[in-house]
Formats: sequence, structure tokens, C-alpha cells
Amino acid sequence: MLKQFLVPEKDQVLVPEEKARAGTQAVFEKMGLPPDEAATSTDVLITSDLRGCESHGISNMLRYYITSYGDGSYNPRPNVKTVRESNTSATWDGDRSLGLHIGPGAMELAMDKAEEHGMGAVAVKNTKHFGMLAYYTLQAVERDMIGVAMVSAGGGAMVPIFGSEPVFGTQPIAWAAPADKMPPFVFDVATTQVAANKLGLAKRIGSKIEPGWITELDGTPIMESVDVPEYGSFNMLPFGGTRENGGHKGYGFAAIADIMSGVLSGNGPGFIADRSYSFFVMAYKIDAFRDVGEFKADMDTLLEKLANNKPAPGHDRVLYAGLPEHEETELRRANGIPYHREVVDWFNSMSAELDLGVTMP
Amino acid sequence: MLKQFLVPEKDQVLVPEEKARAGTQAVFEKMGLPPDEAATSTDVLITSDLRGCESHGISNMLRYYITSYGDGSYNPRPNVKTVRESNTSATWDGDRSLGLHIGPGAMELAMDKAEEHGMGAVAVKNTKHFGMLAYYTLQAVERDMIGVAMVSAGGGAMVPIFGSEPVFGTQPIAWAAPADKMPPFVFDVATTQVAANKLGLAKRIGSKIEPGWITELDGTPIMESVDVPEYGSFNMLPFGGTRENGGHKGYGFAAIADIMSGVLSGNGPGFIADRSYSFFVMAYKIDAFRDVGEFKADMDTLLEKLANNKPAPGHDRVLYAGLPEHEETELRRANGIPYHREVVDWFNSMSAELDLGVTMP
Repeated sequence: MLKQFLVPEKDQVLVPEEKARAGTQAVFEKMGLPPDEAATSTDVLITSDLRGCESHGISNMLRYYITSYGDGSYNPRPNVKTVRESNTSATWDGDRSLGLHIGPGAMELAMDKAEEHGMGAVAVKNTKHFGMLAYYTLQAVERDMIGVAMVSAGGGAMVPIFGSEPVFGTQPIAWAAPADKMPPFVFDVATTQVAANKLGLAKRIGSKIEPGWITELDGTPIMESVDVPEYGSFNMLPFGGTRENGGHKGYGFAAIADIMSGVLSGNGPGFIADRSYSFFVMAYKIDAFRDVGEFKADMDTLLEKLANNKPAPGHDRVLYAGLPEHEETELRRANGIPYHREVVDWFNSMSAELDLGVTMP
Repeated sequence: MLKQFLVPEKDQVLVPEEKARAGTQAVFEKMGLPPDEAATSTDVLITSDLRGCESHGISNMLRYYITSYGDGSYNPRPNVKTVRESNTSATWDGDRSLGLHIGPGAMELAMDKAEEHGMGAVAVKNTKHFGMLAYYTLQAVERDMIGVAMVSAGGGAMVPIFGSEPVFGTQPIAWAAPADKMPPFVFDVATTQVAANKLGLAKRIGSKIEPGWITELDGTPIMESVDVPEYGSFNMLPFGGTRENGGHKGYGFAAIADIMSGVLSGNGPGFIADRSYSFFVMAYKIDAFRDVGEFKADMDTLLEKLANNKPAPGHDRVLYAGLPEHEETELRRANGIPYHREVVDWFNSMSAELDLGVTMP
């Protein structure tokens, strides 16, 4: 993550993984999920925090989930239905479940189909926030598969290049592949210049955003470094930013995520489906194409070449997607997760209010 | 395309589609391809020129193909071998064929597998330039499928973010989906800021390139608008450009194309495979997930929302990937293809030299 999204050291409270996990588990059970399903949802959330992806962890998301279960918009006991199915594919109706509640099971099904036929994919309509996409692609990596995940997260955030009316949400895409000795390649990005959640983080921390990240309401890109404006007073640009800088490419990938998730699942394009989200998960069985050992050896060769690349002036090292997250996970497993003290305070007062019987740190 | 890549009107010679097609067909036959296979290769090349993608048409590529057949690096009569196969997948050894010679057949096989099982993919190693990727994804659109194509085109062009040693080629990705009344969504991009071929075009036309497109050899991004430097004196940035502008996302997609094409096919990462290219084509049968008519109706809804989006100040209209190319094809079918006169002169002198018996316009 860019520096402006990190919690300043003076505001950090280190919470051991088990404490964070126990607290989140208690919340999901209180919301009405069966214990094993609460554990699945918890694992998605805590894996985000361990990987340094706190925009999708407890800090930003848990209070929002509590509100949404509380007002009935999320269904804690969904009756998930299979709408259509083939050798390699399934389309589900998620029955207003939280995406990260049923997402791991969707990927399991995609992988089972891939195990038998070489590839498998599940498209899910009528569901909610999916959490950190990397999680699902890591499930595939564990089974010697290539994993893909995409989400259509509404349509109120991102304008098309040269446009002024938002058509897409942050429409994220993730892709992962296993290696042998090197940490796996795990790519997970919003197709906006920045995830919406990260704007929330930046606002809390008081950081500015970069030129070419957002637009005025008339579609004019804001090309200065500014404070995060109020929600409703700006729209977001696709990644790349302006046309000259490749913004039309980010725009295209946003459309792909909207098509593969929203249109293919039957949820409809994000801008119509609005608060009903949809997602698409897919697994490729490597062995269907090539010997797995040879594949992983080639992945090591590629990832070593990237990680050992001679840095440009002003930089210490070269990274690849998944490498810093892997290192961060090891650190946080050992030392605890650095939450903002405001988050810990919130958790403890919420826990008292809901009588959860757990505290942090 | 950006304005700096268009042939100035005073230098244009309009060549009717049939003339361009006949000329290209004669070239491929002279190179040793059987007539039907020459027709396939010709169709890929002329479709590029019709869509306004002249970077991948006659102008830049044909003379290069002639040289490469001439010096024996391309095999005009390849013995393509199936290395591995499953219900949904195949891995081919392309026997040094030109990619656009065997690419359409690879996509046919992927679609046949998708027809039966819902999805199909073919990974090809040991092949050469693939031409315009959009072509293969359009094959899928014709059969009510979603099409995907990726290429690992060597490793000598693009540095990773913060790096100085090139690891990737332009590693393009294409994705297309059919609509009903609207022209299909057809996305086809290099994962560099700009296709290498387009730098050649810009050089011929004398245009400058934009800030954040390329780097010095030590990895420092060039942040001014400059003339296209000599080959060998710069490296390319992933699309997005700098880290703050989303360049790490373009970098990730470059790695995905390298993994899905190079590593999965057994060709190896592009930086090792060098002049042996590899590609990956895939088809999703829409009907495996959802009723095709409903899918297309939703695509119309999405694409109309994009095309009718209120433009930002300073812009006339909003486009989506595939829309301008569709319009350009109609224009060029009617009026001819606007080649640079230098290209037409080259074609005619080459034709005389090889005794092809065809001329342009």
C-alpha cells in the first residue's frame, strides 16, 4: 500500500491474531451465522488484516457489516440456490448473503469442477460485499490451481473515460498462481485508481489523494493533490487515470469485471443492480495444461527475476503482487495486527453493547 | 487510437479492402503457406486494418513477416503437436508457426470444448507474432461466447514498477462479449503504456510520446513529452505508468499474461523464451451460465449507458472498447483503408521484386 494508507505508529495498537479472530467470530455469530460459517467469514476478514489489506478488514468493514445485518439488508441464514449448472460452471442466487460468507464455498465448487474437467467457474448474483478477493484466489493456489475472482460492486463510483455519469463500482479483479520456493503471485486490485475503502482510510489518517484519481461531478479529472472530498461531491477514475496515461485500459477491465460478474450471473450490470452485488470465481487446474512441478519451477524463475530486479534510482527493491503481503503476514502473525486505536476503542464499546464477552487487544 | 498515431490525411492512400486482401494473400502464399491457411492469416491482418488497428496490419507487420519467413525463423508449414489435452483444455507446440497462422484454429478448438463442457482454453508454445488479439475474441462473439486471448511476447521491453531490467514484452490481453443491438464489447490492449508497434507508427509520423510512458535505461520514468528515442535506449512502463497512477496494476496484468501464456503453455516466462512467443485463448459458453438472449439484453443496457454517458467538458462523446473499431470498420469497408503512401510504395516495390503480380491501390 502507498504510505498515505498506513496507520501512523503512534496510533497503532497491536492485536494478536487469535484475539482479532475471536472477536470477529463472536460478531458473526451474534449476527446469526452458524459457528462454522462464522468461522469461514472470519477467516476472510482476518486474512485481509494479516496481509496488510486493512481496507478490507475489521477497521473499515466490520461495523458496516453489523449495521447491514442489523437493518436486515444482509441475510445471515441464506438459502443459496443453483440457478444453472454445467460440467464446468454454476450460477447461484446468493439470497442476500454477505459475499464473504458464501464466496469460499463458491470457489470450492469451481475447484471441484476444475479437478474433474480442467476448469471451473461459479457466478453468483444477489449477494453483498465480497471482502478481499485475494482470499479466493489463494484457495486455488492451495490446490495447485490458478485462481481468478471478480466482483460487480454496484455502479455509483466510477465514470467511463471522458464521461461524467458513474457506471461502475470499484469492480475489483484478482488473479493468483502458485510457485515452488517463492511466495505465490497474488494480484488483487480495484479497477478504480484506488479502492473506495482506502479513501475512507485516507480520510481517517488525514492523507491527501494523488492527481488523476477522481473527477469533479461534471467529469473533469482533478489533477491536483487534494484532501479526500465528501462522498457525493466527486466520482472516481478508472486506474491509469487520464486517457493518455492508460485510463481507458482500467476502464476496460472495470467493464470486464462487470460483465463476468454482473451480466453473466444474471444480476445485471452494476449500475442497475446497485446494492445487490455479484461475483465470479474461477479455477484452472494447472495439471490440465502442464506438469505442476514444471509450472512452479517456471514461476520461481519469473518471480525471482522480478524480486531481484535492479531497482531504479530512489528505490530499495522491486516487488511483485503477493510478495509484500506474504512478508506482512509473517510479521503480523508474529507481532500482532496494528489496528488504529480508534478501531480498537470502537470494537470494545461495540462488544460491550452487544454483550459479546470479548475485548481487544 | 490517440491522434499521434493516425496517418496525416495528406499522406493517406485509400486502398479498397479486396485489394489489400489480395495483396496480403499473395504474400502469404509466396511465403509457402497453403492457400486456405494464407487466407486465414490474411483475414487476421486485414481485420486489424479495417478496425483502425494499423499498428498490427500491413503497415508495420507484413514486411517483418516476410523477413522472418525469408530467414527461416518462421515455419510456413508447421506440424502443430498436441502436448496435453483435457475435456476443456489443450496445450500445443506451434512448431515456429506465425501466431496468426494457427491462432484462429486454436480458438476454434477452445470453442468446441466450450460448446460441450461450458468452457475451453488452448495454450500454445513455440509460436510467433499473434497479430491483433481482438480477432480471436471476435471469433467467440460470433458463436455467442465470451472470448479471451493473451500473449507472452518475449521479455525485452517492459520493466517492473521500480525496476530497471526488462522482464516482459508488451504482453497484451483481449476480452470480448456479444451484445444484441449494440456493437460488441471488444477490449484489446498492450499491458505496456503503448504497444511497441505504435512507437514505430509514431516515429514514422514524427509524433511525440507522453510523459510516463517509458523509462531511462536505469529505470527512471521519463516524465516529459519527447520524440520516440532509438530502440535500445529506453525501456517501457506498464500501463498506468508510475506507481501513484496505477502502474503496479498494469504490471500485474502483464504478469498475468506472461503466466497464462508463457508459463502455462510450457514456453517459459517471456524473458527467457525471448523470440519464441506463446499464447492463450479461451472461450466461455454464455448459455452454460445464463440464457443468451437475457445476457445480450443486459449487455445492450450496459453498453448504451456507456455510449450515451454525458461527456465531460471538452469531449464530444463517450466510447467503450469495440465501439470506435466497429464504426471504423464500416467506414473502411465503404471507403478503403487509409495506408501511408510510404507503405503503399513499399508494397508495390516488394510485390514487383517477389513477382507477386498484385499492386495497390
